[in-house]
Amino acid sequence: VAKRLEKFKTTIFTQMSMLAIKHGAINLGQGFPNFDGPDFVKEAAIQAIKDGKNQYARGHGIPQFDAAIAERFKKDTGLVVDPEKEVTVTSGCTEAIAATMLGLINPGDEVILFAPFYDSYEATLSMAGAEIKCITLRPPDFAVPIDELKSTISKNTRAILINTPHNPTGKMFTQEELNVIASLCIENDVLVFADEVYDKLAFEMDHISIASLPGMYDRTVTMNSLGKTFSLTGWKIGWAIAPPHLTWGLRQAHSFLTFSTSTPMQWAATTALRAPDSYYVELKRDYMEKKKILVEGLKDVGFKVFPSSGTYFVVVDHTPFGLDNDIAFCEYLIKEVGVVAIPTSVFYLNPEDGKNLVRFTFCKDEGTLRSAVERMEEKL
Amino acid sequence: VAKRLEKFKTTIFTQMSMLAIKHGAINLGQGFPNFDGPDFVKEAAIQAIKDGKNQYARGHGIPQFDAAIAERFKKDTGLVVDPEKEVTVTSGCTEAIAATMLGLINPGDEVILFAPFYDSYEATLSMAGAEIKCITLRPPDFAVPIDELKSTISKNTRAILINTPHNPTGKMFTQEELNVIASLCIENDVLVFADEVYDKLAFEMDHISIASLPGMYDRTVTMNSLGKTFSLTGWKIGWAIAPPHLTWGLRQAHSFLTFSTSTPMQWAATTALRAPDSYYVELKRDYMEKKKILVEGLKDVGFKVFPSSGTYFVVVDHTPFGLDNDIAFCEYLIKEVGVVAIPTSVFYLNPEDGKNLVRFTFCKDEGTLRSAVERMEEKL
Ligand SMILES: CSCCC(=O)C(=O)O
Ligand SMILES: CSCCC(=O)C(=O)O
Repeated sequence: VAKRLEKFKTTIFTQMSMLAIKHGAINLGQGFPNFDGPDFVKEAAIQAIKDGKNQYARGHGIPQFDAAIAERFKKDTGLVVDPEKEVTVTSGCTEAIAATMLGLINPGDEVILFAPFYDSYEATLSMAGAEIKCITLRPPDFAVPIDELKSTISKNTRAILINTPHNPTGKMFTQEELNVIASLCIENDVLVFADEVYDKLAFEMDHISIASLPGMYDRTVTMNSLGKTFSLTGWKIGWAIAPPHLTWGLRQAHSFLTFSTSTPMQWAATTALRAPDSYYVELKRDYMEKKKILVEGLKDVGFKVFPSSGTYFVVVDHTPFGLDNDIAFCEYLIKEVGVVAIPTSVFYLNPEDGKNLVRFTFCKDEGTLRSAVERMEEKL
Repeated sequence: VAKRLEKFKTTIFTQMSMLAIKHGAINLGQGFPNFDGPDFVKEAAIQAIKDGKNQYARGHGIPQFDAAIAERFKKDTGLVVDPEKEVTVTSGCTEAIAATMLGLINPGDEVILFAPFYDSYEATLSMAGAEIKCITLRPPDFAVPIDELKSTISKNTRAILINTPHNPTGKMFTQEELNVIASLCIENDVLVFADEVYDKLAFEMDHISIASLPGMYDRTVTMNSLGKTFSLTGWKIGWAIAPPHLTWGLRQAHSFLTFSTSTPMQWAATTALRAPDSYYVELKRDYMEKKKILVEGLKDVGFKVFPSSGTYFVVVDHTPFGLDNDIAFCEYLIKEVGVVAIPTSVFYLNPEDGKNLVRFTFCKDEGTLRSAVERMEEKL
């Protein structure tokens, strides 16, 4: 393995999903629904395949999908972007992240991450040769430590990565936090890479795209995907929206990472993004129901549950159960209880910081969530 | 744009396909069929979507598809590989190439390319920080200059990239060439990255996977895809087969480039790879018919056509028509004649080497090929 990837292991999501299968455990680990995506999107994919939309798409996306992405972005943020020059379709948001890092970050550039963070950020920054500066968000509210952020920014800071709503904690960056970050970025000429794949799963407050703050669009790459919002995680359709000067770099990386993204699925995704508002309202209502079942269940079981404002994740403190750390707890949970959660220490540069926390997802049907809670009530 | 991608432009395939649309020209440039893939594969995709195979696949591929890939490889090469440890599914062969470079090549490693070469090789090697050593294959037969190869290998050589059947020339590496390359690789402890996406489009001789030569499997990454063989270039399903120690590195890169590949399309691809031999026989027969129409047409028009043994491309010398170079010729061809071809100078480290050559594809229906030839007969 090349040095740039030496320190990384098999991703925790893969490890845990394999263990779930091996032990017949209920999988509240990796974030994929155990229910299907909506019929109108599946039908659109089937129609596209039947209609022969099966050859290479344009590298940065079929015109119709690029336009639908721009439209949705306008509806969500008020920003008007040119679909031809500012939108790039990728093989999931994971590829958008990789293309952004490899297309825009030079060796030695400093990039600020907030821990805990989705593991691909660190790995792709390592591929790009970046120097990672890590700021830890701490329970119970995972607020941004502004003074630490100020002192972490240097003249070598090229970008700050913001994931809101935030995986794994469910934290949503507040208007005040985003305002401070924005003014620091403008003051210090720093870019923002915003991973907003959970934007439609914002329960406790409104989602704010940092790109929409004054002066920010021109220095922001906003990334999103179809998978979480349309319960079709296996389709791997993502995108990045950025001003032309940033789009150029990430498109170049995208050209040579995958060249283009599945044509029939882009047609289906076009239909998806044009869903009526009622789709999103219903999605949120369903997820709030699920969240309630899981959160109340976890509290009854005896966990300390931290408030989650968005995403389909909640983070809990497992220490009431006396296991050594998050890894040991998750192992016990799989083998003795039959439930899979995600240990969070892998999401920190310093694993110690996450040793008390584990993440559960509630993107499962209500019966599954109830069974998981029952198992924990019985055996923990 | 990051320095690693500074020298690259919009890919020539994108440029030319855009111009084709703009000028209403017949597109014999980018290699995608203007006919549809087979119904049995499309039906399998539709069934998978209906059956709810729509969530994240396992990172390195669904077990069924990994197994089908291993089976086909065994049938083709006699090699028995472990689908769990030696097969990785990717978002097209383009991603397999990127994952191989980023997962296995360190900065400063020397990698040998044969020019002309598919543009992503150079760009992904640049992302990996490799030092490219380039050996030019020259018309009429594009044979490997063995002495030059010998003197190019150094103690820093980490890998040789072999693309057979070869894009853009249609050259197929002969048994003797592969034997020499293999013994040089073994002698000097060099890896081989083999891009074999056109293996089923071998017309004039049998395709040989270099992995099947004695002592070679353990040092070879063999890459392939669904797109060319099943006329479904827009589905973006590829894979890499390699011994566990090489698979580890490329899987790590894959994990963070895209994480996983479209689930329903992997189910469909599983069905595709289990096609009866008659499918491949018919595919080849159809393509030989198309090839004949294009090659004879190009000769009648007055081109010097170089022999192409495989792929759906042929390379010609355009100099009988008096244009300055390949770019000028292709521009004239689009604007004055209404046909798109690919200039080859972009496939060389030294563009001068390709200035007399342009590439045409024959992956189009016979009517389209005939119309293109007619336009050239009339206007060139
Ligand atoms: C490849 S897993 C992607 C992110 C996610 O779903 C998770 O954090 O579980
Ligand atoms: C992205 S184009 C892939 C290769 C190909 O089809 C071509 O060389 O035309």
